[in-house]
Amino acid sequence: MRRIDLTSAGFLMLEKRETPMHVGGVNLFTLPEGVNERRFLEDLREMLQATKEFRRPFAEYPVTGRTGLFWEKDENMDMDYHVRHSALPAPGRYRELFALASRLHTTLLDRTRPLWELHLIEGLQNRQFAVYNKIHHAAIDGVGAMHITRSMCTTDPEARVGYAPYSLEAYERYKQLRFGQSQRPKTPPRQRELRNVLEALKHQYDSGVNLVTAMRRFGGAFFGRSGNLAVPWHNVPKTSINTQVCGARRFVAQSFAFSRVRGVGKVMGATVNDVVLAMCAGALRRYLLSRDELPLHSLKAMAPVSLRAEGDLESTNAVGFITADMATNVHDPEKRLRRIQSSMQAGKDLLSELSPAEANLFMQLTQLPALVTFLLGLSSRLPAFSTVVSNVPGPREKLYWNGATLDGIYPASIVFDGFAMNITLVSYHDHLDFGVVACRRSLPQIQRIIDHLEESLQELEEVAGLAQPAAKKRATRRAGTAATAKTTTKAAGASGTKRSAKAAPKTRATPRTKAKARSKAKPRAKTAASAAGTENP
Amino acid sequence: MRRIDLTSAGFLMLEKRETPMHVGGVNLFTLPEGVNERRFLEDLREMLQATKEFRRPFAEYPVTGRTGLFWEKDENMDMDYHVRHSALPAPGRYRELFALASRLHTTLLDRTRPLWELHLIEGLQNRQFAVYNKIHHAAIDGVGAMHITRSMCTTDPEARVGYAPYSLEAYERYKQLRFGQSQRPKTPPRQRELRNVLEALKHQYDSGVNLVTAMRRFGGAFFGRSGNLAVPWHNVPKTSINTQVCGARRFVAQSFAFSRVRGVGKVMGATVNDVVLAMCAGALRRYLLSRDELPLHSLKAMAPVSLRAEGDLESTNAVGFITADMATNVHDPEKRLRRIQSSMQAGKDLLSELSPAEANLFMQLTQLPALVTFLLGLSSRLPAFSTVVSNVPGPREKLYWNGATLDGIYPASIVFDGFAMNITLVSYHDHLDFGVVACRRSLPQIQRIIDHLEESLQELEEVAGLAQPAAKKRATRRAGTAATAKTTTKAAGASGTKRSAKAAPKTRATPRTKAKARSKAKPRAKTAASAAGTENP
Repeated sequence: MRRIDLTSAGFLMLEKRETPMHVGGVNLFTLPEGVNERRFLEDLREMLQATKEFRRPFAEYPVTGRTGLFWEKDENMDMDYHVRHSALPAPGRYRELFALASRLHTTLLDRTRPLWELHLIEGLQNRQFAVYNKIHHAAIDGVGAMHITRSMCTTDPEARVGYAPYSLEAYERYKQLRFGQSQRPKTPPRQRELRNVLEALKHQYDSGVNLVTAMRRFGGAFFGRSGNLAVPWHNVPKTSINTQVCGARRFVAQSFAFSRVRGVGKVMGATVNDVVLAMCAGALRRYLLSRDELPLHSLKAMAPVSLRAEGDLESTNAVGFITADMATNVHDPEKRLRRIQSSMQAGKDLLSELSPAEANLFMQLTQLPALVTFLLGLSSRLPAFSTVVSNVPGPREKLYWNGATLDGIYPASIVFDGFAMNITLVSYHDHLDFGVVACRRSLPQIQRIIDHLEESLQELEEVAGLAQPAAKKRATRRAGTAATAKTTTKAAGASGTKRSAKAAPKTRATPRTKAKARSKAKPRAKTAASAAGTENP
Repeated sequence: MRRIDLTSAGFLMLEKRETPMHVGGVNLFTLPEGVNERRFLEDLREMLQATKEFRRPFAEYPVTGRTGLFWEKDENMDMDYHVRHSALPAPGRYRELFALASRLHTTLLDRTRPLWELHLIEGLQNRQFAVYNKIHHAAIDGVGAMHITRSMCTTDPEARVGYAPYSLEAYERYKQLRFGQSQRPKTPPRQRELRNVLEALKHQYDSGVNLVTAMRRFGGAFFGRSGNLAVPWHNVPKTSINTQVCGARRFVAQSFAFSRVRGVGKVMGATVNDVVLAMCAGALRRYLLSRDELPLHSLKAMAPVSLRAEGDLESTNAVGFITADMATNVHDPEKRLRRIQSSMQAGKDLLSELSPAEANLFMQLTQLPALVTFLLGLSSRLPAFSTVVSNVPGPREKLYWNGATLDGIYPASIVFDGFAMNITLVSYHDHLDFGVVACRRSLPQIQRIIDHLEESLQELEEVAGLAQPAAKKRATRRAGTAATAKTTTKAAGASGTKRSAKAAPKTRATPRTKAKARSKAKPRAKTAASAAGTENP
């Protein structure tokens, strides 16, 4: 038995029937040429189920002890339970994939077993297959999940690996690969320092001058005395995103070319994350306008930031939050971007003055009211934030899993009372893979967010002067309708232009016609989760 | 809003994360000749999702009011959520079907919606498809579920129905068909009489002399003063069936020819239900012997009996229980059957002296301790029964759903702490369809129960003198290996013998070779859920 750290335990304690606290997502692959799908997947399943030694806590389940929650080893791992083989009904489009992922993401993990499931999914078109992962947030955070995906893949399409992503072998090899033998990965400071709240507070009050300053500034923001620093609860408007959630989810996904987002950032002097937040802000504004419920006050987004020390592969949860002012009440896209930028900067300044341990405690303290309102069932009436926009850095190289090409990493995260929608994205290779999870009842038309993200990015490109002139637009409409497909990036690059993405918005093809257009251009259709994302799963 | 009756509310209140309280099962169909599977299932899905008016409570969800639980109308039914299209991975055997059914039966229903799901499942071999149903026990009991299955089907293979099983139209037509216009189905007395416990007790104490007598006899049985009447808690041994359950399930299914069971009953002067209980008792004895944990005291089974008045289609829960002494400590199969018989008779005698309302109250009162031990988490330490064996009378005619032949109705019921296994069976057409649900962790080899049921039935046939002489056995071994397939019944009937079922038990084919044998004889293989049931899903 080993103690479950505070943040991780929180995810277990806050979990309810209607608000499962697992994260995961869909990894999309293309089969290697010439292999038989059934045999290939069968081999993968056998390899995955043959794991004997697991990285922590993939062979452990949570138990309640007298002094808190602990991980206990499961001596009889039922691998048939954890590794599952599923199939999509015909015709096997992304629509069917997202419908299945929505259902799988809805159900609770069994607490009497290690808190993870892995589903191999067959039946996709175009020789693709998918892996749906589900891991309790108590067992892993977004960056940790990325390490796991990274550790099971290779950059060499010819390489074959005989170990599962959650195996001890994958973990050891990955450590070796990333940090070599000399530079051992650091033990996370939190495990030692933050054994429990009391100890942590004592530790901090002895030395934590920075922390007190930070708390003061945080408090000041409530009374409008902290410049651009946005804080939770302060003027958070109520929208259909901030309602109580039901027990079912909707999941949609989409890829955007990294070069498009970076392009806007370069011209505007903003980070990729700032542009991503501006994309989301624009999408939310459009979504709320279309539902006639755009609030007077700006939405605020919880933007998680990693508190993980470089080289820390051990921490299960090393994540803090910045409150981003989404400026959804600003009509002008440039002004919106600027306001987001300055609120992010204020949040980063505050965190940068703290040590990782202090930052962690700061998070615990400032999140405490969230815990209280959640436990009292008031989250939906007193929302701390409007939504979550989480940007997880992923692998920058093209990856392969036993010869199968990893086409996309679409994350699926958590929604709960007060946050009926979660936007998480992973930067992988030359694109940004967005996964949107929402309460199925509160936000029935979540697929529209995907469309709005594209429109919002186009708007930013226009501001940055990266959009094509109107005359050229019409000529490139065909390409424009598939603008959100990752593979078009290369095509655009090859033609020497920055992007030909800006299709005339008013005549933008509907999802269905888009799907048709794409079915003519097969290689493009294969890696674009676009069409399905915009259909109703 | 209308009040949820007491028994139904109990199923909602007792539900926990690890013990979902829904019932359901797998209906197996064969596609009509010449139709395209995809189009046929697509048409079914469209028809099912087009439902506008529902029978109660299929458009209602539970809400907590000040005076108890109520059904509230869902004004925005999300039919995409309730009616789902799923698929099996290759090769689409019963093994894959039961693996999927096990998973679907594991997950909780969303309490913020009407408490049901229906899954159309494609990808089975031999032009079969399946429907997995999931309905909360608060919304329906076994007999009610049968009425629903019955109401969606026709005896005419040419007939086409344009209404869903849970639609108001199906309900009205079925009422009309079964009871005509003159004889209106009775309103259940319980709804009126048992508005709450207090009222019910008052009502009963005024007139319930029978009830007091029954309670006295029930109490007497604890002290061994009631002849053959078996009662809960009294000398119930602890086995691996009576443990705390985990949050995952295993489901297996199998059909047995009705003529075999009735044959034994006729010769032995026992009811079909007595023989079924004896089959289960024999199977449990073998199972526990193989695990080296056969207890000294006999297992007791909770055998639900319907308290539903003939013609009552309205009640959601009209079910009582008899405690059957399973005589698992008796080696001789005939003596075992006799002891089961007399304990069932004693239970029936007791119930028969009560009016339906009194019987219902009797159940409430005698079950009260079960509720208390369950709520205190003591069910696994103080088991009231050893297991549940529920025999649900189903339709006796061969049925069709829009031309698709209904091959089998395999029920999936509830397990909870103290009852890690549930055996439910439906008599349909000329066979008995068994569905076994078990806790995935406590009873990992549940598929063996299916084998043991067959062995146990063969043993009873031998006792009744219905088994074939040894010489003939060898000749009919091929048929014998498929003995559990329903369609062999007809073949056996045609050859003029009662049954040629008794294959030499010691040389009984393993599941895998059975599957091979069956793949040679296609029409037989189609309706037998046998092979898959004995493999590990």
